[in-house]
Amino acid sequence: LKKHIPIATTKRLPLYHEYVSRMESEGSKWVSSFMIANALGLTPSTIRQDLKHLEAIESSSFGYSTKSLKKVLENALGVTTGANMVLVGVGRLGQAIVHHKMFKEKGFVIKALFDAKEDLIGKRICNIPIYPLGRLPEIVKKKRISIGIVTTPVESAQYVTDLLVDANIKGIWNFAPINLRVPPNVAIENVNLCPSLFLLAFRIKLLEKLP
Amino acid sequence: LKKHIPIATTKRLPLYHEYVSRMESEGSKWVSSFMIANALGLTPSTIRQDLKHLEAIESSSFGYSTKSLKKVLENALGVTTGANMVLVGVGRLGQAIVHHKMFKEKGFVIKALFDAKEDLIGKRICNIPIYPLGRLPEIVKKKRISIGIVTTPVESAQYVTDLLVDANIKGIWNFAPINLRVPPNVAIENVNLCPSLFLLAFRIKLLEKLP
Repeated sequence: LKKHIPIATTKRLPLYHEYVSRMESEGSKWVSSFMIANALGLTPSTIRQDLKHLEAIESSSFGYSTKSLKKVLENALGVTTGANMVLVGVGRLGQAIVHHKMFKEKGFVIKALFDAKEDLIGKRICNIPIYPLGRLPEIVKKKRISIGIVTTPVESAQYVTDLLVDANIKGIWNFAPINLRVPPNVAIENVNLCPSLFLLAFRIKLLEKLP
Repeated sequence: LKKHIPIATTKRLPLYHEYVSRMESEGSKWVSSFMIANALGLTPSTIRQDLKHLEAIESSSFGYSTKSLKKVLENALGVTTGANMVLVGVGRLGQAIVHHKMFKEKGFVIKALFDAKEDLIGKRICNIPIYPLGRLPEIVKKKRISIGIVTTPVESAQYVTDLLVDANIKGIWNFAPINLRVPPNVAIENVNLCPSLFLLAFRIKLLEKLP
């Protein structure tokens, strides 16, 4: 991240990235500052000012190239560098995440799995070994892990988070529906699917209001 | 939704809801228009104007009550009404979603499951029966289903979506990493976990820059 990017801008960049990723997945080749402004409730001039702080973005009379804008945002956000990860809790959700190809393509690689169930230890999922929790500190250090994915039941989520924090993890990607305590030097991102479902329900409602 | 809410406001309401839900899950009792404005890159005055279109929200010198604001937003967004749903594709991810308690608590109830695999037909997950795809049109109609959850492999996602659309579904909640085609009267919401992971990586980067 360039040093001179204003704090307010850095907070909007992830929103732009999320919008542009969605537009790309929907097949849009171009996005304008008006489209982004409209979708996010900002002014087009805010968007244009923000994007001036980044690398040059390919543009045309239709707006910015979706692909180019996404790439520039990813460079700014450091997304392209990726991270080594471990996953704790090899249940249904944990296994679904291990099988997800998208993260690995982006450089986010799961290096080891952990579970408390003895009968899982030593098995592999997608060729990634499952270890007992006792080996977590050693493996997090040895494999230079920066992100811990928590897919345990609610009851074990804080215990597992404390283990990860003690092992000097930098960030927790939490799928358990609970508010985890982490020290201020550890980043946390909670995955909650409800807002996405509510947004769908809201879209259905808006469509029903159309003539 | 009240008829006089401006379109631009209706587009911002889901963003407010997502922010307030996050604040609540992090334990914040109060949120101010300044906090929301800062987090979403809007002006505090936009927030205050937008919220004036809604029901009265409990507030104090600290700002709005997080709980009250969330409830008012949910009423406006129609979230509290919920919906009947079906899920197609009972793999790892599909099963994880069926076991998720949060949706049901919010009134979003999965009424039936569908899969192409013959050995799954007739079984139940969380007491919800698994049917063959051939019975989808009949069951969607009989059980007044408005939302179809697509958790199939990429290869089958469009086929299944077409089945759901033909059965007069109102919205598709898509977990397959593919851009699905739906007619303009059907709402679609794609779940993509990458932005959440990228945001975590970005937060880690910001924390590393702190003195």
